[in-house]
Amino acid sequence: RVNGTRLMETLHSTCEFGKAHPWGTHETETGMARLALNDDDKRVRHWLIEQAKALGCKVTVDQMGNMFVFRPGKNNTIPPVMMGSHLDTQPTGGRYDGILGVIAGLEVLRTLHEHDHQTEGPVGLVNWTNEEGARFPMVTVSSAVWAGEIPLETAWNCKEVTPTAGQKPQTLKQELERIGFLGEVPASYTVQPMAAHFEIHIEQGPILEDGGLKVGIVTGAQAYNWYEIEVKGRDSHAGTTPLSARRDALLAAAKMIVESNKAAKEFSGLVTTGIFRAEPGSVNTMAHTVRFTLDARHPSDEQLAKMVSRCRELFEKVAKEESERGVEVKWTTLTENMAVQFDKGCIAAIEESADEVCARFEEAAGGRKLWTHLTSGAGHDSCNASKRCPSAMIFAVTREGMSHTPDEYCSPEDCITSADVLLGAVVRYDKA
Amino acid sequence: RVNGTRLMETLHSTCEFGKAHPWGTHETETGMARLALNDDDKRVRHWLIEQAKALGCKVTVDQMGNMFVFRPGKNNTIPPVMMGSHLDTQPTGGRYDGILGVIAGLEVLRTLHEHDHQTEGPVGLVNWTNEEGARFPMVTVSSAVWAGEIPLETAWNCKEVTPTAGQKPQTLKQELERIGFLGEVPASYTVQPMAAHFEIHIEQGPILEDGGLKVGIVTGAQAYNWYEIEVKGRDSHAGTTPLSARRDALLAAAKMIVESNKAAKEFSGLVTTGIFRAEPGSVNTMAHTVRFTLDARHPSDEQLAKMVSRCRELFEKVAKEESERGVEVKWTTLTENMAVQFDKGCIAAIEESADEVCARFEEAAGGRKLWTHLTSGAGHDSCNASKRCPSAMIFAVTREGMSHTPDEYCSPEDCITSADVLLGAVVRYDKA
Ligand SMILES: NC(=O)NCCC(=O)O
Ligand SMILES: NC(=O)NCCC(=O)O
Repeated sequence: RVNGTRLMETLHSTCEFGKAHPWGTHETETGMARLALNDDDKRVRHWLIEQAKALGCKVTVDQMGNMFVFRPGKNNTIPPVMMGSHLDTQPTGGRYDGILGVIAGLEVLRTLHEHDHQTEGPVGLVNWTNEEGARFPMVTVSSAVWAGEIPLETAWNCKEVTPTAGQKPQTLKQELERIGFLGEVPASYTVQPMAAHFEIHIEQGPILEDGGLKVGIVTGAQAYNWYEIEVKGRDSHAGTTPLSARRDALLAAAKMIVESNKAAKEFSGLVTTGIFRAEPGSVNTMAHTVRFTLDARHPSDEQLAKMVSRCRELFEKVAKEESERGVEVKWTTLTENMAVQFDKGCIAAIEESADEVCARFEEAAGGRKLWTHLTSGAGHDSCNASKRCPSAMIFAVTREGMSHTPDEYCSPEDCITSADVLLGAVVRYDKA
Repeated sequence: RVNGTRLMETLHSTCEFGKAHPWGTHETETGMARLALNDDDKRVRHWLIEQAKALGCKVTVDQMGNMFVFRPGKNNTIPPVMMGSHLDTQPTGGRYDGILGVIAGLEVLRTLHEHDHQTEGPVGLVNWTNEEGARFPMVTVSSAVWAGEIPLETAWNCKEVTPTAGQKPQTLKQELERIGFLGEVPASYTVQPMAAHFEIHIEQGPILEDGGLKVGIVTGAQAYNWYEIEVKGRDSHAGTTPLSARRDALLAAAKMIVESNKAAKEFSGLVTTGIFRAEPGSVNTMAHTVRFTLDARHPSDEQLAKMVSRCRELFEKVAKEESERGVEVKWTTLTENMAVQFDKGCIAAIEESADEVCARFEEAAGGRKLWTHLTSGAGHDSCNASKRCPSAMIFAVTREGMSHTPDEYCSPEDCITSADVLLGAVVRYDKA
């Protein structure tokens, strides 16, 4: 068993780096705004290095700033069994998404260390850079570079989406350099291979809580793509330009967003616009340019492609037929992620561990099984890892299914339960 | 007659202060970004003081930064006949909107000066601060304070809508102080009364050009109101939040904008959204808050009120019934401007002057009348002035009716024609 008190204390103390958006009265009742590679991310990264060294672990930082912590086993010529997640957050993020996965991984290493447990091969922890894609709009980009799915240069050149006031948008590489985490080790599965990748994450959905369950064992993740849509019209005077003479980029973009929601319903998928910018931005002048994002998801790759095609048709129709004198619309793909199936061996290790851990609660629950298989609605670094090594995930209960919001919450009991499941799964997988 | 060459040279040379957005190859083929009270506005204001002094005119600056230039007449105990417009522009503005009115007024003073023409009473020029409402979102705010329509403190406290990178939003008063144009004279029609207010402005619509006409004589302006709409929902994860569980502020705002356009069509009015901001602004997180503006116009005060009421109903419906788990919507009024009728005496003076000036072209035009009465689609400082003194406006031809865009254009001939009409109208009104 992990040390639950230490796990929770560690989690909350690291949230001092980047805490924001208080929502309750207790000092831990705040959210987070630790955007990738900002000064708070730098601080928590230095903290992680210290903790790893205190356990006698080796730390390497690769060219994407991914941090690998290695605890040697009996045979160190074989690749390590890794636990990983991310320490970056959304601008209005919470204390669990990503953070729980890294801190629980560290707690597993601490538990192995204090019990002097010798594993067969090395066991380790990875903190993946910019998982959220909230600052640099390429989600899970650093595990993707590791997996050979995205070229290093493309990732390095990714520009931040909301520049700091008074500055030009920085690239991911510039910010890695600035905070001192541009490592020399290539970000590559060939250079730093893994025997397996296990990840705890909050569910971010309501199924566990609604079902009175303790643990989710994730068998795969839905497909999702991100796009930026640019709509170009003509700026002109709001008081003197008849409706029929307009090329109003903002009105056209609003119509497109409404249409994209209809497409999502038609295909039983999800489409969301989270960013919307209009230029020049003056009350009595029509916008000449609007840029907005589209986050499109579906459990089926094929249905996702169809849903996105429908959006393209609908947007073209708005641009040509429903915008008076017409606007132009241009799509840029930010990321495309196929649906993922996780590894049977990893899933089996988690199942065995979950059986054991959940047994604690099953008497009180009248013998009811307290874990279930789930599919992830969100993308995770494990999806990229799974392309190059056996991978699977453990989901922890999420209050009201809410995440990417300051009051996202996973109870201490649920955090600890998931960490115990992780510990058991890693020890089992290493043994096997 | 004014000196047309000097008029055009002066106009373009002052556009060096704040020129932006080149659209052609000639050095004058650029737009403007001279937002109220920025450094370029400061420079052009200092330039205006010098020019006025060179003509032996007195200059006063009031508490709103309005600049009054006075040329004495025979009897200086009576209020002056004023010409006025504004030197501030839209962020993607052109070289004529406002600027032509001030520079033509200066040219009239220069013409009177070089002919040593003595007027009955004083004649003057006023440069109204922040007419556009593009930086501080209260349109024609400074003539409104002068007319006693808006309290000084309300205007002073108005915050800029797009803060400079790296700074807090500044108030109008802070910026007046910063550029040294916070005058001591009260901004008030009781302290600085006017005998009349004449304003040249580009038409900003297509009627003159389409009709092959030279001059518009403006008999009034339509009513218009500005609002800021705040939509509050809940930020949550784009990949794990089912559509049915959402409180998506951005989608709701998009629906409202689409509905507002329907309301505009229903009432044959105009509704425009020029500013739209979504927070927190992350691809995979729904916005918790969206703020957008509404610019609503109608020739009839009553129909405008009805059209805005319809928007309120439609937005409420979107918020309550068409946004899954619902959003909240809050309206803030930024400005409300009733429809205006200009003064018959001022209109008559312009008509007589226009008859004389247009006679130059009427032979070539086969005796066709080359001026027409028009109603303004845009608001102008003359609308506020008209509440406290006889007022009327002269419209100049606008290429393709386009304004609030860098390539807004009024030909030298049309600029000069309007200035000649202004000269004749002012001299006649003063005489009468
Ligand atoms: N888990 C998570 O929020 N990851 C970000 C990638 C996504 O948007 O699905
Ligand atoms: N003429 C002009 O563009 N004035 C600004 C006020 C308005 O939006 O009507």
